[in-house]
Amino acid sequence: MLRSISQTSSDGVTEELFTLSFSFGDIPGVLWSPDSATGSRPLILIGHGGGQHKQAPGVVARARRFATECGFAVVAVDSPAHGGRPQSDEHKRLITEMRTSFQTGGDATPILAELHALLAGQSVPEWQAVLDAVQKLDHVGAGPVGYWGVSQGSALGVPFVAAEPRVRSAVLGLNGAKTCAEGAERITVPLEFLVQWDDELVPRADSLALFDRFSSTEKTLHANPGKHGEIPRFELDSSVRFFSRHLN
Amino acid sequence: MLRSISQTSSDGVTEELFTLSFSFGDIPGVLWSPDSATGSRPLILIGHGGGQHKQAPGVVARARRFATECGFAVVAVDSPAHGGRPQSDEHKRLITEMRTSFQTGGDATPILAELHALLAGQSVPEWQAVLDAVQKLDHVGAGPVGYWGVSQGSALGVPFVAAEPRVRSAVLGLNGAKTCAEGAERITVPLEFLVQWDDELVPRADSLALFDRFSSTEKTLHANPGKHGEIPRFELDSSVRFFSRHLN
Repeated sequence: MLRSISQTSSDGVTEELFTLSFSFGDIPGVLWSPDSATGSRPLILIGHGGGQHKQAPGVVARARRFATECGFAVVAVDSPAHGGRPQSDEHKRLITEMRTSFQTGGDATPILAELHALLAGQSVPEWQAVLDAVQKLDHVGAGPVGYWGVSQGSALGVPFVAAEPRVRSAVLGLNGAKTCAEGAERITVPLEFLVQWDDELVPRADSLALFDRFSSTEKTLHANPGKHGEIPRFELDSSVRFFSRHLN
Repeated sequence: MLRSISQTSSDGVTEELFTLSFSFGDIPGVLWSPDSATGSRPLILIGHGGGQHKQAPGVVARARRFATECGFAVVAVDSPAHGGRPQSDEHKRLITEMRTSFQTGGDATPILAELHALLAGQSVPEWQAVLDAVQKLDHVGAGPVGYWGVSQGSALGVPFVAAEPRVRSAVLGLNGAKTCAEGAERITVPLEFLVQWDDELVPRADSLALFDRFSSTEKTLHANPGKHGEIPRFELDSSVRFFSRHLN
């Protein structure tokens, strides 16, 4: 059951904070939609990155673009173990090991693979429950759905997009075949896949190997120079057009 | 001296056939511009593929899009040894060897490298002369210039873009580091670089190696599934937006 917490509006976009009760505990979420929206519309789900949360600046900026330029509804939720959600001992152990590995320059691949698999086991059914609940709202409805997520948002997005037939297109990226939870081969919807050419966290070959695995007949890899966090601004323009093309 | 041959108009675009006298002989060309255009505007140069010519269907389709959607002027010319232009014995030998190599599945790399270097020695100064002449026209003028060319159009485009400071942005692709004439390292303008992921003529690693060589701080690799000739239609949409962003 989706429980509304607050509703605010600015610059033409309404932002509704909500909580969804679920078997693993409450899921805190945000729904953005054009002011005074009525009736069914396409919906974008945004999966945030590792260590981030549903209202991280990059998430909010993307959500507002999709709402204002496309008239879409947009949802983000705090991923398991993120944004103040409870962390199990296993979460804590893996997150600590991951940070240590990044700091010492060790190979974080096996830890990331384990962490993403653990988180995805929880986040895939959570996203499905969020989708069920949000599509019941009058101003969202059962329109076509897109998924946007890079880095951890992609690692958790791959198994979700693979499992969920309501998702018709997705922007993924910034992760590789070795640290991504399973499902890439089962994805057949149109994709844009973002690669940072000088990514210090994801080996280039692993990124290309993951792109190779998707079964989608329409999939485009966009590679730009720069590190993990340096996706150029014009890629958001591209995401807007990509979803406009596939969800309208 | 640019000599006009004919002028026709359809669907809002005027097409002017011309010949430019040059030291290597006459260069046959086409200039597309919005009907009744007056005053200076951005200009796109389109370099056609191997075995094609200035009015190949793909060239015309792109030219008309740039003229109608962006209001730009667009020029294409027959490359040396193409479109009925004279072929030297060396041209003939290399083109024959290239075809034989493609048919027998041999390694065409050294032949393509030699052919592209030969053609570029002629086409770079030719493109510069075409640019000089076309920019003198009232409805073109000395606005910013873009270059669009893939496959041979890219192999000849790389040394041209490297040599010509009037070119401010370029779409290149479908060729690799081993068969491209020199100059990639000297290119610093924004680029979109197209790769066909299953290209039967250009090894994937060679494509990625060429992308690596460009010194541009803004360069985006777009990779799509499919063979050499199967660039998806939406990449032309992307080219339109790329040039709109950089030349307007």
